[in-house]
Amino acid sequence: MKNLILASTSTLHGQDYLEYLIPELKKHFSGCSEIVFIPFARPGGISHDEYTSLAQKAFEKAGLRVKGLHEFKNAATAVSQAEGIFTGGGNTFLLVKQLYDHELIVPLKNAISNGTPYLGTSAGTNIGGLTMKTTNDMPIVYPPSFNTLGFVPFNINPHYLDPDPNSTHKGETRETRIKEFHQFNTPPVVGLREGSWLEVKGENITLKGKLTARIFEAGQEPYEVEPETSLNDLS
Amino acid sequence: MKNLILASTSTLHGQDYLEYLIPELKKHFSGCSEIVFIPFARPGGISHDEYTSLAQKAFEKAGLRVKGLHEFKNAATAVSQAEGIFTGGGNTFLLVKQLYDHELIVPLKNAISNGTPYLGTSAGTNIGGLTMKTTNDMPIVYPPSFNTLGFVPFNINPHYLDPDPNSTHKGETRETRIKEFHQFNTPPVVGLREGSWLEVKGENITLKGKLTARIFEAGQEPYEVEPETSLNDLS
Repeated sequence: MKNLILASTSTLHGQDYLEYLIPELKKHFSGCSEIVFIPFARPGGISHDEYTSLAQKAFEKAGLRVKGLHEFKNAATAVSQAEGIFTGGGNTFLLVKQLYDHELIVPLKNAISNGTPYLGTSAGTNIGGLTMKTTNDMPIVYPPSFNTLGFVPFNINPHYLDPDPNSTHKGETRETRIKEFHQFNTPPVVGLREGSWLEVKGENITLKGKLTARIFEAGQEPYEVEPETSLNDLS
Repeated sequence: MKNLILASTSTLHGQDYLEYLIPELKKHFSGCSEIVFIPFARPGGISHDEYTSLAQKAFEKAGLRVKGLHEFKNAATAVSQAEGIFTGGGNTFLLVKQLYDHELIVPLKNAISNGTPYLGTSAGTNIGGLTMKTTNDMPIVYPPSFNTLGFVPFNINPHYLDPDPNSTHKGETRETRIKEFHQFNTPPVVGLREGSWLEVKGENITLKGKLTARIFEAGQEPYEVEPETSLNDLS
């Protein structure tokens, strides 16, 4: 049975890395001793080792050890044999390119479909959707495809940001960008605000956290859904 | 002799479309009667016809007619025979995909290298750089390559935005994104603020407008350059 937490962000303003999620992690990864961490998105260009140390410090608070995927000889085997998997945020283009380059897409799909508990934050959440076409990231490398893992039958926009009514900047708002996405793509998009996450248990998808999420469906006005709303029918 | 204006944005806050650039356009396209407009980036998903009408209204103020590239039977021939070319903003992924799909990369390179005056705004400016890897846009479609026209020997980040010191949002700042770009790419990046443009005359590249630009070189601290600075040595 699928068992995923797909979180908008790793970190809330004024908090430590993963701090707000620690109580969830204890439950989510109960029975696990070591989590395989996928550090490939490398936020701000930090090294895989540095990023893994950061994850280790947070997971210690939940009584869990972390080992970076880059430390294993065979990454595909490591994914297949993992007790639990966490993919951290950073750059989604980089993450997806690395997953394809290391031929990890199929092993990840299989492991997570078979019930290996998965946590994603930001870029690690983007890849839980059908495609990475609603990432906010800069295309710093060219991945062989924008198709991702598809554990939910829609796309996710993490770090969803409401338009700033006082802004004089002419760059597109997030809502405009997602509207452009829907000119060429039909899947719904869940705009997940920082502090929100999706809980996927088997076929049940539920919005968690304290905030509403903004749902974009092609050809419809966007709308808000409350925490604890089931998104099972969104596809 | 190359003759380009690469502008950060089409529109300034509180102004009409292209308003601040009209005096430049008169000079830039002097001797032209009809400009070929490339509407492929489709901002907000508007149609090619709607977008061309918008451009037409602005160019009328400079005494120029506009014809949308989508109105020609053979787009490559239209580009080759154009008196002047304007590529408008919108989504850079969409623009670049369309340029490749219509086999327009080489005709555009040839026409502009041979002196056809070119104006780009936003996405139309991104494609003047070496690659589109420093666009701000959402990857709503998958282009066959991120390589672009390379009329300047660096990359451009249009709509450059300084970090907001009051923000509590945890999405990456523009500077962080460009730093991530430089983990994997060596070309400099010119962060071009709204209201600034690059003037390319032959081999001479000059920053224009009233604002400084922010220059990012791999492995160096970013720095500001004043209007009228020559960027000939940036590569």
